Amino acid sequence: MTINRQVAEIRPFIVMDVLERAQELERTGHDVVHLEVGEPDFDAPEAVKEAAIRALRNGETHYTHSLGILELREAICDFYEVTYGIKGLDPDQIVITSGTSPAFIVAFSLILEPGDEIILSDPGYACYPNFARFVGAIPRFLVVKEIDGFQYDLERVRTAITNRTKAIMINSPSNPTGQITEPDQLRALSDMGLWLFSDEIYHGLVYNGARAHSALEFTDRCFVFNGFSKLYAMTGLRLGYIIVPKMFVKTVKCMVQNLFISANSVSQRAAYEALTNPEVSQDVERMVQIYDERRRFMVRRLKEIGFGVVKEPKGAFYVFANASRFEKNSYKLAFDILEKAHVGVTPGIDFGPNGEGFLRFSYANSLDRIKEGLRRIEEFLGEKSL
Amino acid sequence: MTINRQVAEIRPFIVMDVLERAQELERTGHDVVHLEVGEPDFDAPEAVKEAAIRALRNGETHYTHSLGILELREAICDFYEVTYGIKGLDPDQIVITSGTSPAFIVAFSLILEPGDEIILSDPGYACYPNFARFVGAIPRFLVVKEIDGFQYDLERVRTAITNRTKAIMINSPSNPTGQITEPDQLRALSDMGLWLFSDEIYHGLVYNGARAHSALEFTDRCFVFNGFSKLYAMTGLRLGYIIVPKMFVKTVKCMVQNLFISANSVSQRAAYEALTNPEVSQDVERMVQIYDERRRFMVRRLKEIGFGVVKEPKGAFYVFANASRFEKNSYKLAFDILEKAHVGVTPGIDFGPNGEGFLRFSYANSLDRIKEGLRRIEEFLGEKSL
Repeated sequence: MTINRQVAEIRPFIVMDVLERAQELERTGHDVVHLEVGEPDFDAPEAVKEAAIRALRNGETHYTHSLGILELREAICDFYEVTYGIKGLDPDQIVITSGTSPAFIVAFSLILEPGDEIILSDPGYACYPNFARFVGAIPRFLVVKEIDGFQYDLERVRTAITNRTKAIMINSPSNPTGQITEPDQLRALSDMGLWLFSDEIYHGLVYNGARAHSALEFTDRCFVFNGFSKLYAMTGLRLGYIIVPKMFVKTVKCMVQNLFISANSVSQRAAYEALTNPEVSQDVERMVQIYDERRRFMVRRLKEIGFGVVKEPKGAFYVFANASRFEKNSYKLAFDILEKAHVGVTPGIDFGPNGEGFLRFSYANSLDRIKEGLRRIEEFLGEKSL
Repeated sequence: MTINRQVAEIRPFIVMDVLERAQELERTGHDVVHLEVGEPDFDAPEAVKEAAIRALRNGETHYTHSLGILELREAICDFYEVTYGIKGLDPDQIVITSGTSPAFIVAFSLILEPGDEIILSDPGYACYPNFARFVGAIPRFLVVKEIDGFQYDLERVRTAITNRTKAIMINSPSNPTGQITEPDQLRALSDMGLWLFSDEIYHGLVYNGARAHSALEFTDRCFVFNGFSKLYAMTGLRLGYIIVPKMFVKTVKCMVQNLFISANSVSQRAAYEALTNPEVSQDVERMVQIYDERRRFMVRRLKEIGFGVVKEPKGAFYVFANASRFEKNSYKLAFDILEKAHVGVTPGIDFGPNGEGFLRFSYANSLDRIKEGLRRIEEFLGEKSL
């Protein structure tokens, strides 16, 4: 048996082990509170589902243009103009993909040669380094600190750049930290002479007056990753997109024709509805309000219990809490909590060595379940410290 | 600007140029007959669409298991047992993907290291070499001859194998030739000590008593690619799958979690219906009958017009006809036919240098349109020869 070395280097997610063990516990009759999940607990908005149903009934079950349905790509251009003031985006710069994951494959394989480096934050989303490894590139991890809101230290970035460094990954609002990157920081990062890879999948999920900025507000030398999974609760419809610089349009089109043919026709109609139907905007507003309520509750309770939350997370649906007061080994702590308190949480180590000592709590679950989960954790940690 | 060398090597499809020019002609008021298309003209079966609608209404809009919904994977195991007598397939060997394209990414990147070789037929489906190039591997083209029904010459295969040759691609029924590979040939190819990559996407679309065999009937050392796009007319729903050898299950699961997360939840329910609802089987039978009627007509008429069809194509929905009597340059001929007769056909050169002198005619269009298209071509070629 031979396995490609680059593929063999792809690491499994620990959160999947947590989930599998949680499901085993459930099968044996235990009630488990899921605070480890990375997807909205809401169903897709009614109008979105109805648009998908219309597309099916209309027989829109054929391949679309390889870049995606033109109206959808135009709507995305409008969305970036209205939301971020980005003018002059060409619909051909938008590539609709089956979820955001293939969008990463496109950009990583386009920009990174084997041996090239990409700067990633530690902690950070666990898939990024695996996309890098998949194309033979080298993830160059930079420690980001709790005290800095888990943002890059610009001096450290400058020092890390070599002649093989091609890109830097940003993710604001961030998974796992829920932190938002400020405009000054984005501007400084766009001035580094690297390609900015900006994962904007949690845009729109911001609270307490916070605002997430698009990389496109600061530079054209960027690839923007976005999609409908998180903001519109459409994970299962698998629809994402990438915005590529104009100079890459022709190459990317050819690449996508070959590698993916086209994205799902029905989901594209659903996504178009998500972007253009005011009813959906109202649904999203409601969801954001509910997330915010949970967020406030969760942050307050986690602090009460004794977790460290140095800087208020204002985006996505995660709190990345310092648990080192209770246990330095986040893997052990997450599994102890699962086995003994029957609450699923994600160990910080899943997001990089510098995530050690932290736990990621997701508030993509109902307030009642969050209350119950945190009550159980408090009780468990109370007994533990006796 | 830097573009990864492997990506830069991906070639565009000529058929896309044909299609774009055809659409331009249509925009300026011309009626174009499309015989260049590679997708069913039928809509997805009613029961399939209704299953998708039920899934949407039931709120099945969330991520599924990364390998796909278990019932669907079980149904695929049953399908391979009932259809081909393959026993003992484990649902974990089945990976559901967004169309068959990501399935190619999985297998090619798993088995081929940069510099490794894969044997491909010339002519053959134009995407295969691009998947190879994408992972840095080298496509090793072997000429397959019209007189041999475009099947590999086994002696030539043996001679071509080097210590870098890892896999051989088979595609039966074949795009572009519509030919079916016989069991003896499949057995011989499975004895070559290589991985068999068997693209079975046109299985079920067979006529006149022909039968397509699965690679799994002959060897476990194979990756099977299949999906719902062609047989069930579900191209836009983007649902495919790969069957991987047991020894790769763990690696592939980790890879898919990272690279794709999961396939579309709604399309998976639609696919499950396609495999299990007897109404859909009846729809498929009807479609196959209609394809067969068109096929007989097209082959007869092409021969009448003067094209060479040496061996009757009995699968897929293509006739790969020898046009060298009229014009050796297939690109020129295809564009002449498009510009002057307003019929879209695919030049043989799109499928490899040895496809030169041929045209691929698709019968995924109504009998009336096929009649009209061939009438125009006959007229055009008649005038041309004056």
